[in-house]
Amino acid sequence: MITVSVLYANSDDASFDIDYYVTKHMPMVQAKLGSALLDSQAEQGLASGTPGEKPPYVALCHLHFDSVEAFQGAFAPHAEEILADVANYTNIEPTFQISEIKPI
Amino acid sequence: MITVSVLYANSDDASFDIDYYVTKHMPMVQAKLGSALLDSQAEQGLASGTPGEKPPYVALCHLHFDSVEAFQGAFAPHAEEILADVANYTNIEPTFQISEIKPI
Repeated sequence: MITVSVLYANSDDASFDIDYYVTKHMPMVQAKLGSALLDSQAEQGLASGTPGEKPPYVALCHLHFDSVEAFQGAFAPHAEEILADVANYTNIEPTFQISEIKPI
Repeated sequence: MITVSVLYANSDDASFDIDYYVTKHMPMVQAKLGSALLDSQAEQGLASGTPGEKPPYVALCHLHFDSVEAFQGAFAPHAEEILADVANYTNIEPTFQISEIKPI
């Protein structure tokens, strides 16, 4: 299984509409990706490891798929529409991380 | 519920022993944090969002707790021992991100 994480880095001029993100954007992403998307999680940054320091990321999401191919097959047909919606909730350019889940 | 993510950033001279991480370090972390740790996931970076580009992170983990206080209470007594083990599997200084899980 793989995780596709989308990370929105913090900065002094970062803006992020968390309500739009969880009530509009993420439900749209879930609908577009369909059953290839096994599970999804949205997160809002609270803190870093250093007291008083801003969280490295304002927001993140983690999307689980069976494989990179399953993700690509589900995402490619809707990539343009999904990415076009990003400007509706943030001025941050998202970072994409694709990872393999390792048994502990 | 919160997620504590520990992210190991990629670089040209990054080294990371994923086998030590999943067979020694993470099981030790699970044992030390005890029942306050609701769930944990280890990941190895595969790719970024750009074909041919390295993943932003060599490895990540995500640890779930009921609250920041639950995390701090479980982590503080073992922080020194857990952090001292990092040098046994990587030369990367980890990034800590504490986030609140938001319902979608």
